[in-house]
Amino acid sequence: MAHSDEGMWLLNDPPRQLLKERHQFDLTDPWLKNAMLASVRLNSGGSGGFVSPDGLFVTNHHVAADSLQKLSTAGKDLLRDGFYADARDKELKCPDQEINVLQDITDVTKEVNAAVKPDMTAAEAFAARRAVMGRIEKESLDKTGLRSDVVTLYNGGLYHLYRYKKYTDVRLVFAPEKQIASFGGDVDNFEYPRMNLDVTFFRAYENGQPAKTPHFLKWSQTGPQSGELVFVTGHPGTTQRLETLARLKHRRDELLPYTLYRLRTLEAALKQYGEQSPECARQAATDLHSVANARKAFSGQLQGLLDPKIMEQKQRAERDLLRAAADARGLSEQTHYPKLRSAFDDAMSALERIEAVQAKLRGFEKAHALVETGHAFFSPLFGIARHCVRMGDELPKKSADRLREYRDSNLESLKYQLFSPAPLYPELERAKLAASLTFLAENLGGEHDLVKLALAGKNPAARAEELTAGTKLFAPAERKRLVEGGAQAVAESKDPLIQLARAIDAEARKLRARYENEVEEPERQAYAALAAVRFLAYGSTVAPDATFTLRLAFGTVQGYEVGGEKLNFHTTFGEAFEKSAKLGGAEPFDLPKRWLDGKDTLDLKTPFNFVSTADTIGGNSGSPVLNRAGELVGINFDRNRHGLVRNFVYTDVQARHIAVHSKAVLEALRKLYPAAPLVKELVGQ
Amino acid sequence: MAHSDEGMWLLNDPPRQLLKERHQFDLTDPWLKNAMLASVRLNSGGSGGFVSPDGLFVTNHHVAADSLQKLSTAGKDLLRDGFYADARDKELKCPDQEINVLQDITDVTKEVNAAVKPDMTAAEAFAARRAVMGRIEKESLDKTGLRSDVVTLYNGGLYHLYRYKKYTDVRLVFAPEKQIASFGGDVDNFEYPRMNLDVTFFRAYENGQPAKTPHFLKWSQTGPQSGELVFVTGHPGTTQRLETLARLKHRRDELLPYTLYRLRTLEAALKQYGEQSPECARQAATDLHSVANARKAFSGQLQGLLDPKIMEQKQRAERDLLRAAADARGLSEQTHYPKLRSAFDDAMSALERIEAVQAKLRGFEKAHALVETGHAFFSPLFGIARHCVRMGDELPKKSADRLREYRDSNLESLKYQLFSPAPLYPELERAKLAASLTFLAENLGGEHDLVKLALAGKNPAARAEELTAGTKLFAPAERKRLVEGGAQAVAESKDPLIQLARAIDAEARKLRARYENEVEEPERQAYAALAAVRFLAYGSTVAPDATFTLRLAFGTVQGYEVGGEKLNFHTTFGEAFEKSAKLGGAEPFDLPKRWLDGKDTLDLKTPFNFVSTADTIGGNSGSPVLNRAGELVGINFDRNRHGLVRNFVYTDVQARHIAVHSKAVLEALRKLYPAAPLVKELVGQ
Repeated sequence: MAHSDEGMWLLNDPPRQLLKERHQFDLTDPWLKNAMLASVRLNSGGSGGFVSPDGLFVTNHHVAADSLQKLSTAGKDLLRDGFYADARDKELKCPDQEINVLQDITDVTKEVNAAVKPDMTAAEAFAARRAVMGRIEKESLDKTGLRSDVVTLYNGGLYHLYRYKKYTDVRLVFAPEKQIASFGGDVDNFEYPRMNLDVTFFRAYENGQPAKTPHFLKWSQTGPQSGELVFVTGHPGTTQRLETLARLKHRRDELLPYTLYRLRTLEAALKQYGEQSPECARQAATDLHSVANARKAFSGQLQGLLDPKIMEQKQRAERDLLRAAADARGLSEQTHYPKLRSAFDDAMSALERIEAVQAKLRGFEKAHALVETGHAFFSPLFGIARHCVRMGDELPKKSADRLREYRDSNLESLKYQLFSPAPLYPELERAKLAASLTFLAENLGGEHDLVKLALAGKNPAARAEELTAGTKLFAPAERKRLVEGGAQAVAESKDPLIQLARAIDAEARKLRARYENEVEEPERQAYAALAAVRFLAYGSTVAPDATFTLRLAFGTVQGYEVGGEKLNFHTTFGEAFEKSAKLGGAEPFDLPKRWLDGKDTLDLKTPFNFVSTADTIGGNSGSPVLNRAGELVGINFDRNRHGLVRNFVYTDVQARHIAVHSKAVLEALRKLYPAAPLVKELVGQ
Repeated sequence: MAHSDEGMWLLNDPPRQLLKERHQFDLTDPWLKNAMLASVRLNSGGSGGFVSPDGLFVTNHHVAADSLQKLSTAGKDLLRDGFYADARDKELKCPDQEINVLQDITDVTKEVNAAVKPDMTAAEAFAARRAVMGRIEKESLDKTGLRSDVVTLYNGGLYHLYRYKKYTDVRLVFAPEKQIASFGGDVDNFEYPRMNLDVTFFRAYENGQPAKTPHFLKWSQTGPQSGELVFVTGHPGTTQRLETLARLKHRRDELLPYTLYRLRTLEAALKQYGEQSPECARQAATDLHSVANARKAFSGQLQGLLDPKIMEQKQRAERDLLRAAADARGLSEQTHYPKLRSAFDDAMSALERIEAVQAKLRGFEKAHALVETGHAFFSPLFGIARHCVRMGDELPKKSADRLREYRDSNLESLKYQLFSPAPLYPELERAKLAASLTFLAENLGGEHDLVKLALAGKNPAARAEELTAGTKLFAPAERKRLVEGGAQAVAESKDPLIQLARAIDAEARKLRARYENEVEEPERQAYAALAAVRFLAYGSTVAPDATFTLRLAFGTVQGYEVGGEKLNFHTTFGEAFEKSAKLGGAEPFDLPKRWLDGKDTLDLKTPFNFVSTADTIGGNSGSPVLNRAGELVGINFDRNRHGLVRNFVYTDVQARHIAVHSKAVLEALRKLYPAAPLVKELVGQ
């Protein structure tokens, strides 16, 4: 059941009742429609919102980092130094940024489920479901021209078709210096109080002109007050709140330790690479940030799952569900549950099946992650090689029979990424491959067939050297040649990365099939059964787990206490200067020269960052924070450490998301940056 | 068989023949005696050499780091900023530095082996051997007053009694800035060319006066020439050259991955701690250096063991030994091998037994390392708590029956460490405990009994907070109180760390006993059998693996080629300035202000670091490098990356150890540091 302000709600099933009862807010259709059409998903991983009718949108600097890095070269470091285009013809086109704007949602659950017959094996069921989803998407694409994705909700309880307007001409307008965008760096990541100008502005273009975006968010010149109701519209990535206890224990004891081992390994390798020279540090900056950010987030998740109180809470919830299922006979005849009397048996059986899946998974999870997911080959070069190899095999098939990522409706976006001209640095990729090939051997051992296949008679360091020195895949033209040449061009290629991807492909596909048939499909069926029981017991008062699709969250702006200390709901510009001075201006608490020089011009009392209880998770980075009037009062960019357990449970005792205050952006743009035209576009003056 | 310049030779079995044949050098007894009595072991882990008759000795800055850190406080950072005492009464006493100087060696193999009867169980054999070693040490200590250690050589082939003169009043004389001591930091660690002034001078005191050290090494004012024969006298820590292939595979597939996982975990935690503020960085500096250094060394070892060429070489060596054993009948009757005809069976059986041990070890190795070795509790506070607990149980027993570290002959050194007044920082220890308790849970899983015992119903972060906030063990007086109060004081203590150490002690001791009886003793017996076969086949032309005891290595000073580039045998001061300038003076390639300011006064052609083929390993840090005349021409401080496989195989194709040139030290002391008295003590002018 929804507690307090919990919930990342579906836009087609918003919590109108709850908002009315808890906050006396009437969620109208026009409000919702404007919020939906003004919300942006960045496919590099994050959210944003249109803030002018001319395609201008805001997101986080750390979400924009991928593009900022790809627009940089040795000696021109936009990620570190920032950027501003004071005229439209100076806006910089990102090499491979794609954004999606949700247009509508259709429930296709019946159609998807109808394709799966009760007597099918897991493999047949998986294939049938993949085929029907692919068909629905293809028909939608053909009919509307919109990007069409069937999204699995409640881990298999519902299937919805999401249609997006897609923009691939995205241009950089403004980014601040990294020093102020992520003041405090890794130290202050997931902490509060925070003082970060974590914003970047892009503009979407269509046909070479700024896109027309009549649905946009008005920029609030006042921002939020303490206690005020706010909304977050964005794309939370993944949560595990509806996972069973057995799955969470597997996560705690197997998956998270492996993940942290991997992330710390990559982080060490990237830091070592970066320490070689300032240019090496520049090259490794975005990889390092994303790895360190993930390491900190997963560390918080592990602490959460190792907290007996949280595990007890999850156990209680599971028992409550069983009790409710056992009481099903007494429930109203109005419920849609088909077999009321078997609800308890269904739920218990589903829990047991999920538990059994975990035991199987342990036997091949690491091999699957390393070789099929690709953890053994931590470089976009390998992903490119694999796509070239697999497209040669998959594209001749019917769309419905292909591996899902090669379905017709996804090909355009896939090729846009695959043929990206974004720079890759041979020495960096070599270091990353050396680290991840070593990690492969560490996990499976030197005698393992997959290790021998991958290393081909060399040690990991020498193998990485051979792969990066010999490959031509740095050139987009070569990738195109291979994809266009199909299976034959691939088979004839002497490229060592292509040969590696080919050599392991049979084993990788076997692992994928095992995962699909022994884990994904049985879990999906079991979770669907649990979801049915849950609907029966609680109705739709529980939001589905996050799926990197648009959701609406709400909460109130409020500070909190830690160890007796009361933290205000917002910080100020002044606090950034104070903290930097106190720590001797040493990295990561150094401030940009522009800020030090311009300090006197600033109103130091300007609110900088603020917190609210709204329910967010990774992927929500860059989400607009709206007030009752639907105006943008902030840009969400983080959670505090207490919010790291939100993957599993919602709490508002101390857990908060953190946003840049809308006033802070205006004050900084006006006083410190020569960005008058941008301010004018935002607020008309 | 010894190849080329391979070998870390025993001082009582030096390679006289080899030196004569290969280098026409006549190793005389006086030369050897002076080298032995002038060589110093630092028990914090490293080597050094007396360089004046008044107790002055030189070692590496990175070996001295432990003491430099312990002498530092907030605002006074000797590790970073360096130190010089221009008068003896300004020399700073280290809080817990102990140095040992080897006086003589006695072969006690017969006595030790006689105590172990063929019909004993592994547990009985282990106890009998521990008892006889303890007795020999105790008798020697009582008779001579010297620190007396029975050392196991050839993994059980020989037992030698080493007697040391011990100094515990060690004072800091001179240390340079860390910037120049480890110029290039982690990036250049295990790399060449190098430009490091990695030296620090201490003075040993006795009865409050500078120790009289008539055996010292004359400081060479010229240093070595290319092609010159040099010697390294120091204390190599551990090598694994005589390990069997099965053991090495275990190392590659189990132990090293676990070790790297652990080190990267600790490194990440320490870096995160240090990034919080400059003071946090200061506190974490030595831990971070030692963890990063180990991570890099073990990474190199893993690359070595994943190199099929190296594993083939080890397999060949093992097969050669079996062949030699099979040919034993044809060997001279002069050999001492007792059962010539069974040599092959003995060797084969030993190999098989060692292989069987590895299979057993896999079942409990991690639990043993975490809970008995203490990896789960990465803080000196836990070591202190455990000693207090165990001393209460062990000291009432007869010395021979105690856990080996509590034998009478070791108690003085142990207490010197245990009651050290060196500062500990609660927040740093909290962070280290949080990281290592998390690592415990990651490895054993949240349901494991040992994890539940250690975490006591909290998550790792909260448990670490509880332990460090509640303990009184920061105070040496409390440690003394507990040790003096014995088992009763310990039982009554409410200290959470004492209670933790007590709570897990039964399980920890069980794991230790399993390790001793199922691994240590069977391996020792099997390696003794292999050693016997090896003596039979090759005589004493194979040096034992390193054991952190004094060894003599020799080699020639020579450069080498990498990728077609010829590297000179030495670098120069000028190269340090060039490299720093090229990399924009950014950390870790920043130079001390003193060096930048004084650049013009320096002879930039002064040789800075040089390389030779002599056989070294970790523990040799700070070892004197001597010429034919027995003069000090350098101070060893590192190996290059090609030397990282030296744990397993010796090669001189590219592998080199790296030393600070004796001339560099004089030039820097004369021109940059106000250290005329020190120079005068070294060279008389």
